[in-house]
Amino acid sequence: MSAIPKAFLKKTAQLSAAVTRSIQGSEKFYVPGSRPDLQVPMRLVEQMSTAASIGAEDNPPITVYDTSGPYTDPNSRIDLLRGLPPLRKSWIDERGDTTELDGPSSEYGRRRLTDERLAALRFEHARKPHCANPGSTVTQMHYAKQGTITPEMEFVAIRENLRLQEMKADPRYQSLMPQHKGQCFGAHIPQEVTPEFVRDEIALGRAIIPANINHPELEPMIIGRNFLVKINTNIGNSAVTSSIEEEVEKMVWAVRWGSDTVMDLSTGKHIHETREWILRNSPVPIGTVPIYQALEKVDGKAEELSWEIFRDTLVEQAEQGVDYFTIHAGVRLPFIPLTAKRITGIVSRGGSILAKWCLAHHRESFLYTHFEEICELMKAYDVSFSLGDGLRPGSIADANDEAQFAELKTLGELTQIAWRHDCQVMIEGPGHVPMQLIKENMDKELEDCYEAPFYTLGPLTTDIAPGYDHITSAIGAAQIGWYGTAMLCYVTPKEHLGLPNKQDVRDGIITYKIAAHAADLAKGHPGAQLRDNALSKARFEFRWQDQFNLSLDPDKAQEFHDETLPKDAHKVAHFCSMCGPHFCSMKITQDVRDYAKEHGIDDARAALQEGMKEKAEEFKDRGAEIYPQI
Amino acid sequence: MSAIPKAFLKKTAQLSAAVTRSIQGSEKFYVPGSRPDLQVPMRLVEQMSTAASIGAEDNPPITVYDTSGPYTDPNSRIDLLRGLPPLRKSWIDERGDTTELDGPSSEYGRRRLTDERLAALRFEHARKPHCANPGSTVTQMHYAKQGTITPEMEFVAIRENLRLQEMKADPRYQSLMPQHKGQCFGAHIPQEVTPEFVRDEIALGRAIIPANINHPELEPMIIGRNFLVKINTNIGNSAVTSSIEEEVEKMVWAVRWGSDTVMDLSTGKHIHETREWILRNSPVPIGTVPIYQALEKVDGKAEELSWEIFRDTLVEQAEQGVDYFTIHAGVRLPFIPLTAKRITGIVSRGGSILAKWCLAHHRESFLYTHFEEICELMKAYDVSFSLGDGLRPGSIADANDEAQFAELKTLGELTQIAWRHDCQVMIEGPGHVPMQLIKENMDKELEDCYEAPFYTLGPLTTDIAPGYDHITSAIGAAQIGWYGTAMLCYVTPKEHLGLPNKQDVRDGIITYKIAAHAADLAKGHPGAQLRDNALSKARFEFRWQDQFNLSLDPDKAQEFHDETLPKDAHKVAHFCSMCGPHFCSMKITQDVRDYAKEHGIDDARAALQEGMKEKAEEFKDRGAEIYPQI
Repeated sequence: MSAIPKAFLKKTAQLSAAVTRSIQGSEKFYVPGSRPDLQVPMRLVEQMSTAASIGAEDNPPITVYDTSGPYTDPNSRIDLLRGLPPLRKSWIDERGDTTELDGPSSEYGRRRLTDERLAALRFEHARKPHCANPGSTVTQMHYAKQGTITPEMEFVAIRENLRLQEMKADPRYQSLMPQHKGQCFGAHIPQEVTPEFVRDEIALGRAIIPANINHPELEPMIIGRNFLVKINTNIGNSAVTSSIEEEVEKMVWAVRWGSDTVMDLSTGKHIHETREWILRNSPVPIGTVPIYQALEKVDGKAEELSWEIFRDTLVEQAEQGVDYFTIHAGVRLPFIPLTAKRITGIVSRGGSILAKWCLAHHRESFLYTHFEEICELMKAYDVSFSLGDGLRPGSIADANDEAQFAELKTLGELTQIAWRHDCQVMIEGPGHVPMQLIKENMDKELEDCYEAPFYTLGPLTTDIAPGYDHITSAIGAAQIGWYGTAMLCYVTPKEHLGLPNKQDVRDGIITYKIAAHAADLAKGHPGAQLRDNALSKARFEFRWQDQFNLSLDPDKAQEFHDETLPKDAHKVAHFCSMCGPHFCSMKITQDVRDYAKEHGIDDARAALQEGMKEKAEEFKDRGAEIYPQI
Repeated sequence: MSAIPKAFLKKTAQLSAAVTRSIQGSEKFYVPGSRPDLQVPMRLVEQMSTAASIGAEDNPPITVYDTSGPYTDPNSRIDLLRGLPPLRKSWIDERGDTTELDGPSSEYGRRRLTDERLAALRFEHARKPHCANPGSTVTQMHYAKQGTITPEMEFVAIRENLRLQEMKADPRYQSLMPQHKGQCFGAHIPQEVTPEFVRDEIALGRAIIPANINHPELEPMIIGRNFLVKINTNIGNSAVTSSIEEEVEKMVWAVRWGSDTVMDLSTGKHIHETREWILRNSPVPIGTVPIYQALEKVDGKAEELSWEIFRDTLVEQAEQGVDYFTIHAGVRLPFIPLTAKRITGIVSRGGSILAKWCLAHHRESFLYTHFEEICELMKAYDVSFSLGDGLRPGSIADANDEAQFAELKTLGELTQIAWRHDCQVMIEGPGHVPMQLIKENMDKELEDCYEAPFYTLGPLTTDIAPGYDHITSAIGAAQIGWYGTAMLCYVTPKEHLGLPNKQDVRDGIITYKIAAHAADLAKGHPGAQLRDNALSKARFEFRWQDQFNLSLDPDKAQEFHDETLPKDAHKVAHFCSMCGPHFCSMKITQDVRDYAKEHGIDDARAALQEGMKEKAEEFKDRGAEIYPQI
């Protein structure tokens, strides 16, 4: 952080065009809810008509889930210096259970605010923090248990449906409706997500809406196995590389490509200020691992950490608006020796910090002993727990061992304590796990942690491909998502090797969008297959542009296509370079259809199925249509 | 193919340094078999010792499977103009059941040989083709059924074991032995692959060794679900792009990165000559789809195809040495109308050619009606069948439908016919399949096709990510490999968009090596986990170079690492840029170990597990070691 461009941050802060231009081939729109200030963002992909030669059919617009926030809306004015509009402010205020504080109530937060050397770095328009009124609990779980449907709950209900009900009633969408049933391993995926369903799932602890009252800018989203599978992106500077500017741009970049939440894992010198910039400009929930910052405060000496320092860090971050905290309270003293025979010991940063502290003090960690106090704090801001897996396996060899599962069981015990406080909870999971052991992870989590949402890193299904760990882990992520994991933490190609750049972040995100969507399809999420069907129909009909626009990464699809076939004329041509102009299976299938039409082979199927040559001759004379309609 | 560099091909043909230099960090060696001309190639990765601070332990060399052929052996002299040495020649000759022909017996082969305009393109040192003596069958299955163990069988037995038996007896490898049991869905994976086991699997039709008598250059490999999962790479020029030179280099590039077989799918004007160059220089089995070339011979008019033209093409290619043919004989006339309601009709090129022919003639295809004659021909050269899935689904919507499964059942019927002729057979599979439907594909294949090896393309688990289909498909490939698929046909990032370049080929191959290895791990293949364990131990001990060398793509791992940490000093430093010098979980775990050692905490585990503070105090005084040994 030696060379922070001060002027940039204070006066000319702006994002590069690469992250703010509209997403190719789609248009942002908003589905209104029950009140005028409840507008749920989605994107609409308009499609071309099917060519006359193959049916001259209209193809309806497809709605896609959108995490990109106001950045991709040409009608919104982005000003990084002011941050995003506080969308949820009135919802929070109306509840009347919070108070605006005079300023940060953390000692560290106050110190940073008054440090003149930081003036140039500081986000200028920071709001004063809010806190629950004494005795009040302001969590979504608390409201849900009381039977209240909050605007946040209604927002996510609309968001999850992607207008499927409307489309079901529209004949233009009939041919795009899903062909397959899902297999969802005991999940309860509704045909239509209602606000009541959202409320009930949250009340039961099966889903969470991470939404700190101090992060009113966020567009609510839900994490639970009866909803669409979500993905998280990790960003964050480190002592070695990157700046605030880069981190904010990385966050916007991440949501552009579809990240549902972002974790800021910064470990540099100005993480407080970096976090403020990120939060004020983030339309998605932001998670952190507070122990990282606490460690910075004791100059990296784990044994010098204390409950007081950690508590102050929680307050500091909660008042900035962090939506979920990774808390490694399951790293218990008796579990640490269980890692002794491992090939890769303890690989979680948080886990190893805690382990070091535990051994140094011969005591259970302050996270474990002060867990109830942490709950008290979380429920005053609605910070969700992400109970960390500090003892997760760091290699195939160490998967599903005693240490890992002992910690998981403890996380379940802590979940029940947190729920007694009406705190929202999700559970972090591994790591490195060979395929045959993945399901055991999911099953144990559901059982030991009472169906709290599972949030896993990968898992990586082999250790032998550094440089490709987005792929080794996407294989595991898709599977565990299918089995019931609610959110997948992305892994980039640089995992184990270095800090990801923007391209790595994009690769990691798209890879995880694939894993999450493959899981949604496998679970039979009602709207999931529609997009696949629309894209495949476009592909089959040589509507190249529609194929690009419907894809997870339209820019990449277009770029790859144009690379081999640079001429614009080819883009609408009825072939691709894979086969050449005279030799394309899709073209031939069209010929087959044309032929069939021309010869008018009716009832062909019934006759042909009997497989008799005579029969074939017979309907040859009669005439019919092989492909009656597309 | 307008600008072929003739001079290059005939006089200066050589590969770029990128494909011939040794693979980073490993050395080629050969394990001798029972006869002096049986030398099985492998690579050895030497490891550094563990640093003194964490144990000063020796780390033994790791053996890895090697497909790269003589190209990566600094002791072999590569001459593309002469081709590779005919390794198997004496084995074939000794059997005394073949005859050298005067020249090609296909009409087309003779024509190409005498066409003066092709002189500049032609491989100069082509051997005269061999053919079985009248009445003889020269397939590996034939020998196996007779109880004979061929040198090819012994070769693959040694190759599959990767010296595991030696390592098991060596105490240095004990800590690297697998921790987990596999789940192999009824496969029978032996602890040690013996030549007898190979023979029996081939006799039963559960495995094949594709090895045409006219491709003596190949290093035998085996495809079957009780062996390591293999991968195939597709290369081939098309009418639009690429040259012979590029295709040969692509083949060498493919085997360098680990491709077990290569399919030449060329569709250009000089596919006969291209194929000769590829075969003469290929250490791996080469597969083709003869109907593609047959179609070229009738100028792309599918309806003008005939048995005579097709038969001549089979002979032409068999005498060049093609090791397996994709034959779409399961595309039966009655099945074609079953595709009418599909979103993506028939997407297999072969399938659509056949479908067009069938409809044009209102007859079953000549592949189906002449199947016994095809068998007669295949068994005279030992060309293996790869029974093509011409009706495979081209989209999620069309997965597992009536058309697909009707064809699969037919492929099973054809398998039994082929087996009666002692022809080796594998079965091609989809395609596009959502995760919850993948296992049904494998189960049906095993049942309907009597456990003949399954060879699948992906399957892609979602349609919405063009540009990333190596990943959408690796998710499915890893799963179907786990369930029992014997070989995975790679998919590149350019799938659906264009022709892959060298980088795409590398990305596709490494992605599929990951899928195959993840499957080997999940099935519990005895030697598979050893490499993961060795790499993870190296990673944990900051032996960066060992980590790179043991990885599937050492170059990429090194490059990514150096990108963030360019200084050489960092390469041995005990941290990576992800966390920075003071904040690395692996470093902290080491600190934990050091601490534990220093304080000498014995019996810690037993005491700590009781979780009592008193106990902890007790052994604190007593002293012991938390991490007794790594």
